[in-house]
Amino acid sequence: MSETVTELRRELAQIIDLRTAARVLEWDQLVMMPRGGATTRGDHLATVGRVAHELFVRDEIGELLEAAARDVDGADPDSDDACLVEVTRRDWEKARRIPADLHAEMTKLASESVEAWATARENDDYASFRPWLDRTLDLKRQYVACFPPADDPYDVLLDDFEREMHTDEVRRVFDRLEPALRELVAAADPEEDEAFLTGPYPEQMQHELSLAVIRAFGASNEFFRLDSTVHPFCTSFSTQDVRLTTRYAEDDLHASSIFSTLHEAGHGLYERGGDPALDRTPLATGCSSALHESQSRLWENVIGRSLPFWTWFYPQVRDGFAVLADVPLEVFHRAINRPRPSLIRVDADETTYGLHIILRFGLEQELLFGGLDTKDLPERWDDRMQELVGIRPADDRRGCLQDVHWAGGLFGYFPTYQLGNVLSVQIWERLLADVPDAYEQIERGEFGEIHDWLREELYRHGRKFTPAETVVRVAGGPIDPEPYLRYLADKNASLVPA
Amino acid sequence: MSETVTELRRELAQIIDLRTAARVLEWDQLVMMPRGGATTRGDHLATVGRVAHELFVRDEIGELLEAAARDVDGADPDSDDACLVEVTRRDWEKARRIPADLHAEMTKLASESVEAWATARENDDYASFRPWLDRTLDLKRQYVACFPPADDPYDVLLDDFEREMHTDEVRRVFDRLEPALRELVAAADPEEDEAFLTGPYPEQMQHELSLAVIRAFGASNEFFRLDSTVHPFCTSFSTQDVRLTTRYAEDDLHASSIFSTLHEAGHGLYERGGDPALDRTPLATGCSSALHESQSRLWENVIGRSLPFWTWFYPQVRDGFAVLADVPLEVFHRAINRPRPSLIRVDADETTYGLHIILRFGLEQELLFGGLDTKDLPERWDDRMQELVGIRPADDRRGCLQDVHWAGGLFGYFPTYQLGNVLSVQIWERLLADVPDAYEQIERGEFGEIHDWLREELYRHGRKFTPAETVVRVAGGPIDPEPYLRYLADKNASLVPA
Repeated sequence: MSETVTELRRELAQIIDLRTAARVLEWDQLVMMPRGGATTRGDHLATVGRVAHELFVRDEIGELLEAAARDVDGADPDSDDACLVEVTRRDWEKARRIPADLHAEMTKLASESVEAWATARENDDYASFRPWLDRTLDLKRQYVACFPPADDPYDVLLDDFEREMHTDEVRRVFDRLEPALRELVAAADPEEDEAFLTGPYPEQMQHELSLAVIRAFGASNEFFRLDSTVHPFCTSFSTQDVRLTTRYAEDDLHASSIFSTLHEAGHGLYERGGDPALDRTPLATGCSSALHESQSRLWENVIGRSLPFWTWFYPQVRDGFAVLADVPLEVFHRAINRPRPSLIRVDADETTYGLHIILRFGLEQELLFGGLDTKDLPERWDDRMQELVGIRPADDRRGCLQDVHWAGGLFGYFPTYQLGNVLSVQIWERLLADVPDAYEQIERGEFGEIHDWLREELYRHGRKFTPAETVVRVAGGPIDPEPYLRYLADKNASLVPA
Repeated sequence: MSETVTELRRELAQIIDLRTAARVLEWDQLVMMPRGGATTRGDHLATVGRVAHELFVRDEIGELLEAAARDVDGADPDSDDACLVEVTRRDWEKARRIPADLHAEMTKLASESVEAWATARENDDYASFRPWLDRTLDLKRQYVACFPPADDPYDVLLDDFEREMHTDEVRRVFDRLEPALRELVAAADPEEDEAFLTGPYPEQMQHELSLAVIRAFGASNEFFRLDSTVHPFCTSFSTQDVRLTTRYAEDDLHASSIFSTLHEAGHGLYERGGDPALDRTPLATGCSSALHESQSRLWENVIGRSLPFWTWFYPQVRDGFAVLADVPLEVFHRAINRPRPSLIRVDADETTYGLHIILRFGLEQELLFGGLDTKDLPERWDDRMQELVGIRPADDRRGCLQDVHWAGGLFGYFPTYQLGNVLSVQIWERLLADVPDAYEQIERGEFGEIHDWLREELYRHGRKFTPAETVVRVAGGPIDPEPYLRYLADKNASLVPA
């Protein structure tokens, strides 16, 4: 390794250490902190974030990157060092474009705006949140203006989550999905008697079963924690320290900890599977939001809602919950898979979910660049929901106030959820080609070969390659909605009671 | 507030934020982190610590301090701003004396040396630890050499924990205590039948009772957490976010969570009681190690081992533990108070404890500056133990390997434990003068007025005044061992079975 690269790595390591410290503070805030801690935690986070940002955007980093680029010229472009220089240079150039004041203002606004959103949602009071949304949209437009004009201004926002992806590429995928998903939802069978869906599912047993599943997936005690929060999430502080959270609804199987744990475990396995040699570099995390989501959805849905999975796991679950004593495996499997028109994204079934995302993808572009006035958002939301899913929210809590993302300044993020769904099936098909008995293994509760394949083909690379390159490596070609649509059609066809 | 002071506060706030972030990382490491996290956590901590140090020792901070000193000249010397400038200037001058390399080397060595100590203690293998101790002593001497010559080189180390205290002052107090404590231990009555001391004390009940006590003391859920660790400790991230830990021995009442929780709660109430206006400044923590320990010991011992306290609390405790069903209050009270010669500091009774400290205070001076070779430490330790307490360790685990402090580079710290004991009684006597019915209140489980007095007289000031000034404010005069010796003599006299 050249001396320059060594020095670059040393400089970057300290910046990553600070960003990691910020993530520890955030995890602590959401999982452990007594309520009183909130008075100063925002300041601690702002400071650590600002210091990390300032250290990163220094001229010296740019000079080191330039010198290091010369040193790795001619080296294997897949080598860690070559990728490190390439990826970091792009990150650095982006970060340099944002004035420190705008960066600080966005951080501060996001934190305050999320508070305002929480109160507004609680009181179903969209009007009180509107000024915050206006301010957030304004700052987002300023952010976009820091970059050279793109084909579509939304490209700039998308790039923060899917490096180099273009809006029209997303649009092409979603335009194919929209009519197909609507048709699938409309064609779904009416419900069976599913009184068992409302439990009770005692929390302690949910917890034990959730742990049993993630241990079987390979998320061991030595490298993972599982805690409880209102909104489940996953974060990591190195490949060897991964934190998952879940939630425990006792009266709603769909909102039980099982599925949220499967989901977060998928994110966690991705983080855990990174090459440890990438730790303390900017390459040490999943490649993109869509690829990350492809893994949460692969473990949660493709595996975790499959009949083979439940053939293995259902006996334990039925033993754990008295309410399931007389519910046959097939009835249970249909209940957790059947499409149902729904208002809430996070509770939606696999088929309807995509329509929720398509709605948000359109509306956030209209809000930012299409002249949609925030005062008209609730009605526009409800109209689109009627159009796409066939039902209409009775209030804004179940409408445009349901998600925290916009309040937190996350624009350009929603579409990656659905791209993740699409990719999860493309990747799964490739895995099936290499591991033809994967479903038989799942039926036996064996996940080792599946996990190994994913680590080898995807997880270990971290952020070394662009999302597009990584998708080609792991899925064998560019993003393609067809396998996903076939998968949904096949699954839905299998859900007809005998 | 002058613009300079405002700017100084802003600069200091970000340094304090980083130090606080480091404490969150440390707490997480000890309480929550999966084992795998250890591979990178040391790096994260080193980076955050180094960045905080570098920001603090900048010339700009010195210039701001000088300008601010002019601005507060003539202001009330007890004002927050005047104290901030005075205390910070002294901190800054000390920090500037330590070369960055030495600072980094000490941090690194401490972390590695603690690992080596843990292994050595586990294997009772002092020889394997000796090179680490030698290196630590060497760095400590280099550290001392960074400062101007003092009356006693140990003064420099003591100053890190008790600003401006001199070694001969400690020696004077300990010379008075040593013969008196030896006499009290020798005069202690032989034990009664105390088979109940070995339990069982089920962990869950210990936990519930520990929470019940700290809630009664005023450590509410909103501002405190109580978790479990091998070595109990207290840390805080602001006056509104205090973390206590405890341990649960089921077979040893002395090592049960009750007493360690009372102890850590005392530290925690001190942190919690600081004026919130001092948050995010260098003044926002307890004044000194001895004053901090005075509060842990006041709540743990002066209150928490008193007969009035157990008159209130014992009925709940007896109800909780079957083994106590037939044990009268007075027998229980004698069992938790009676002096017994013991080898382990942390399990020692109130009277013997001081002798453990006197032993360490002498030996660490001999090691650093008195020519005691580390190869002779175990024998010297055992000889002194025989002399002071009358018993001799059978191995080094129960001798010179029992404490982590020296491995972590903490020299000059041990004496503050005993100074804290001495101060706890001085402060308590002053409290009794103002709250003459304090014991009656305790007997009723009422701690509000006691807590208020301590907050008003001590806690709210944080680090505003020097330890000596603070002791005069809260205890009415300089440190004095007589009240403490009277307290012990009275207590021990009361422990004679009827």
